[in-house]
Amino acid sequence: MLKELRKDPITRRWVIISKERAKRPHEFEKTVETPINFCPFDYGNESLTPPEVLSFRNEGTKANESGWWVRVVPNKFPALDDKIDFEKKGEGIYDKITGYGYHEVVIETPEHNTNFSKMSVNQLKEILWAYLKRFNEIKKDSSIKYIQIFKNSGKDSGASLSHPHSQIIATPIVPFVIQEELEGASQYFKFKERCVYCDIIDEEIRLKQRVVYKTENFIVLEPYASRFPYETWILPLNHSHDFSSITDEPLLINDLANVLNVFFKRFDEILENPPFNLVLHTSPFIQGTNEYYHWHIEIIPRISNIAGFEWGTGFHINSVLPEFAAKELKKGL
Amino acid sequence: MLKELRKDPITRRWVIISKERAKRPHEFEKTVETPINFCPFDYGNESLTPPEVLSFRNEGTKANESGWWVRVVPNKFPALDDKIDFEKKGEGIYDKITGYGYHEVVIETPEHNTNFSKMSVNQLKEILWAYLKRFNEIKKDSSIKYIQIFKNSGKDSGASLSHPHSQIIATPIVPFVIQEELEGASQYFKFKERCVYCDIIDEEIRLKQRVVYKTENFIVLEPYASRFPYETWILPLNHSHDFSSITDEPLLINDLANVLNVFFKRFDEILENPPFNLVLHTSPFIQGTNEYYHWHIEIIPRISNIAGFEWGTGFHINSVLPEFAAKELKKGL
Repeated sequence: MLKELRKDPITRRWVIISKERAKRPHEFEKTVETPINFCPFDYGNESLTPPEVLSFRNEGTKANESGWWVRVVPNKFPALDDKIDFEKKGEGIYDKITGYGYHEVVIETPEHNTNFSKMSVNQLKEILWAYLKRFNEIKKDSSIKYIQIFKNSGKDSGASLSHPHSQIIATPIVPFVIQEELEGASQYFKFKERCVYCDIIDEEIRLKQRVVYKTENFIVLEPYASRFPYETWILPLNHSHDFSSITDEPLLINDLANVLNVFFKRFDEILENPPFNLVLHTSPFIQGTNEYYHWHIEIIPRISNIAGFEWGTGFHINSVLPEFAAKELKKGL
Repeated sequence: MLKELRKDPITRRWVIISKERAKRPHEFEKTVETPINFCPFDYGNESLTPPEVLSFRNEGTKANESGWWVRVVPNKFPALDDKIDFEKKGEGIYDKITGYGYHEVVIETPEHNTNFSKMSVNQLKEILWAYLKRFNEIKKDSSIKYIQIFKNSGKDSGASLSHPHSQIIATPIVPFVIQEELEGASQYFKFKERCVYCDIIDEEIRLKQRVVYKTENFIVLEPYASRFPYETWILPLNHSHDFSSITDEPLLINDLANVLNVFFKRFDEILENPPFNLVLHTSPFIQGTNEYYHWHIEIIPRISNIAGFEWGTGFHINSVLPEFAAKELKKGL
């Protein structure tokens, strides 16, 4: 099946063209409420997924059998594939790259009907460990420039299965949004000799009005220029460009699990279990980003729609003040 | 009601914060199938909209009464407002601009239940004339840097009313996506001394495989790096950076109306009346873009979902080959 990265010659954005099977024009995937007996992410159905690449499981249980509490498998319909040769090519006036990369699914729990707000801090911690282990493994591949960890949750979020899961896509180029953040953060650093994210954290702590929650190591805030109602960022208080740096700091992992637990409880309460996307932003595998980039998590509730104006201009129209959203979210925290 | 433009200090993208009314957290707008008797865009309900700024109407009929065939009114819940003083301000480490601008609605027809594929070429021509007239009027305001004409059609497209309409939003800054296109097109021009859009048109005509339709003046094609299944661009064959240049070329307006008619008939047939966004890209009101920018229309069917990966990386994953989409769309044309 064809998989390739194609570059828009005007904006220089890349697109992944990944044709899994010949679809009739109107056949597109929607979130499926998988009947429990047929969910490939449930206990007993391990053979319905490709063989696992990682699992945390009870002693004495075997790979690809039940007994796990977090399980990572290659995506059955991957957008990118590490079995494809990595090659950059021209095609007339255009540029493309073969669809080399990784696409994995982190099955977050054997429990079919749960979500981040209902999971224990301990389970969230284990999920973070799974992210880290796969991140550290995949980054050994020198053709990989970026690893994207993300989660689509709920109908309309883009999730194709309802069983709680995250995804990891590793790409041979630095994605556009990260490039954009790097450029902005690097210019700010040249101008100020400071990390723009650190400055934002300082300013938000000083102002208080957009801070939702703060622990010893993390801050949860509604960004000043929130694109979406209740858009939320979680940032480590101490400067670090690389998510995987917390691998050696179990206290930070525990604290982040705690922050996710506290945040999502309140988030689901106030927004009534909204669909959302969670996206981890970290530095790509290129030199020199450590001074100015700052890894963080962005959470985007999918409760408002993106329309023609947003696509046309890149301008988002947000009808909820970030200050109001912060006030609502932090009630009782 | 607060309206302001806020700048993300990292990516330098602007967001419009436009708080119409205090919304409860879970109250967000969905497309409403307005009952015919209450639709503010129907004949007899003209008083339900703000007073019209333009209408094409039968001789002898009065403004804000029935008898029109295209009617343009200010948006009742505008994202931007020309009654606000235009002012750029700092706010701590952040930057903002007051919500100065225009937000108008082009009511495309008095017919409640119709769409582009069912309208006559003549009606489409009249809609284009309304776009042009408002464009030429609003651009006289020297605080305005860009005018965005767009259309959200169908459920899930972001449209809040089902009666056929387009919108015009005029902004005091050049939007990010346009800035991005300008930068890319300008770099290409520096390198090649040619317009990148003109080169794309030549290449596509040579290759044929992504061309859907072509007339004397316009080409309809599926872009090489289509972000969405069945994403379609319509470009004038002759280089022109400015949409409003066709004001003096009625033959081009007629031809464009014809192209929209042919394209949308086929589009609705093959994709079964999909929701879509249509966005007109034209040069902003800044100097020097005429050599390298090329106005065009982008049509985005809203049949696939945007998920965490797309938001996180800016990478789109498209499961339909543009060459396949072109083949399907041009059948019978």
